[in-house]
Amino acid sequence: MHFADRLIQRCHERNSRLVVGLDPHWDRIPASFKRGFAPDDYCGVISGFLTHVIDVTHEHAVAFKPQIAFFEQFGLAGMEALVKVLAHLRVRHCLVLMDGKRNDIGSTAAAYARAFFGQGDQPAGFPSDALTVNAYLGSDGIKPFLQSPNHGIFVLVKTSNPSSGEFQDMKFGSGASLAQTMAAAVRQWNEPTIGESGYGNVGAVIGATYPEHMAALRREMPCSLILVPGYGAQGGSAQAVKAAFNEDGLGALINSSRGILFPAEFEKTGFEAIREAACDAREDINRIVALRDL
Amino acid sequence: MHFADRLIQRCHERNSRLVVGLDPHWDRIPASFKRGFAPDDYCGVISGFLTHVIDVTHEHAVAFKPQIAFFEQFGLAGMEALVKVLAHLRVRHCLVLMDGKRNDIGSTAAAYARAFFGQGDQPAGFPSDALTVNAYLGSDGIKPFLQSPNHGIFVLVKTSNPSSGEFQDMKFGSGASLAQTMAAAVRQWNEPTIGESGYGNVGAVIGATYPEHMAALRREMPCSLILVPGYGAQGGSAQAVKAAFNEDGLGALINSSRGILFPAEFEKTGFEAIREAACDAREDINRIVALRDL
Repeated sequence: MHFADRLIQRCHERNSRLVVGLDPHWDRIPASFKRGFAPDDYCGVISGFLTHVIDVTHEHAVAFKPQIAFFEQFGLAGMEALVKVLAHLRVRHCLVLMDGKRNDIGSTAAAYARAFFGQGDQPAGFPSDALTVNAYLGSDGIKPFLQSPNHGIFVLVKTSNPSSGEFQDMKFGSGASLAQTMAAAVRQWNEPTIGESGYGNVGAVIGATYPEHMAALRREMPCSLILVPGYGAQGGSAQAVKAAFNEDGLGALINSSRGILFPAEFEKTGFEAIREAACDAREDINRIVALRDL
Repeated sequence: MHFADRLIQRCHERNSRLVVGLDPHWDRIPASFKRGFAPDDYCGVISGFLTHVIDVTHEHAVAFKPQIAFFEQFGLAGMEALVKVLAHLRVRHCLVLMDGKRNDIGSTAAAYARAFFGQGDQPAGFPSDALTVNAYLGSDGIKPFLQSPNHGIFVLVKTSNPSSGEFQDMKFGSGASLAQTMAAAVRQWNEPTIGESGYGNVGAVIGATYPEHMAALRREMPCSLILVPGYGAQGGSAQAVKAAFNEDGLGALINSSRGILFPAEFEKTGFEAIREAACDAREDINRIVALRDL
């Protein structure tokens, strides 16, 4: 089924716009959880912890976003953990937005597409429904990811980090910034992929830390899904979250990673604290969306 | 030892400016080589083939550039092959320029740096001397890779693919293109990292397919190593290769992947054909460099 349609359907079913980010910061995985494993069993700890996280949060989440860097940092053991986590996400029928920010020339982008989306009968090594990509190389590096309507991409437009403006806010001769120019390209790439939901398979990443950019970028890409990192831990604002949604109260996916995975209450109530953090985040976002109508 | 100094020393020792790209295109690995393996033994075929390639080319190459996408596409089996190839490169004392084009916010870039460079006593999962990076996110995403003078990065400035101009050639209000602006940032990031060789640890990627850009970008970054893909298979020109070098006949690294890994003569002379392809590529590049002085 068409990626964006499936994702919008999931928003309705769950009454949720929350994406749970799976960023296994080793030092923040509770010591009480690690105790059941050998000290160097990175694969066991990470896949075990995230499997429990998925079990207690999947009813509140539209999708999960594994950040590959936090798996790659453990080498093969980390990649084995990622494969286990992806298998569990599949068992739970969860959507996977892989956060890899991959980018390369056409023939190499095609290899990344095979890695995450598979090709024909060849299953993906790291099966995902969508992938974040960096479009600095232009459309050659984008098209290999759009071979099947069942998969989507989220293109970096305006990132959440403090230095994102160094290049992204620079203005071209036309008066448009690099981020706005990227948004215009996203709109163009997205158009032929729009499904029955009214949304297409080429989305954008826009950080919640830049509320002043969100509304204009949303208008530039009315039919794109916007993946919004940086709300919560990175200091992103409710105003930015509100501006990311369309009038229909849909079209944006708000990611929370650290805020859900590592709540202070874990030491008292264990994974129940993670369930509550996900439930609270979902309701918090829904309240912000409801404010649109006031 | 300081990354750029080590690399320049290697250029002198080998009288070479050649980087051998390790891109295991499955369909191009000779059938005669695959015959010795089980049909789905991706790890065995890839690591076996590339181990032989390294053995016959390392005397001609300054460094090797594994392209991660071509390993990731085989999932865990591919990543296992990458680990084996990296271990063999270490045994052969080869420098590794990992082509991952990684990019992310600071805390995540730090996780990528751990994956490829290690941290303190923690060894890297995929040990590399340098990594290609995409700097769309600005300096936050660059600095985590510059924590040790023993490692370097190559920042995408002007890529070799046909659509690279879509964003990279756009001109800002100042008159400078995005690629030129990126080059100016590379110069700035590079300055505090310059070693005894006169070169620093922040290099640039500039495709040989755009000879008209090369000379100006070389002047903008006189103390940066330039990694040049696209010569040969992608149609890059000798003129671009020439312009990538400084007056000292150093400072550029010319990558060849398909041209060396998959010579037509393999079916006749086997790995000897690969040895000859590397030797010829090295000499071809040295001839172009010598032309500078005429």
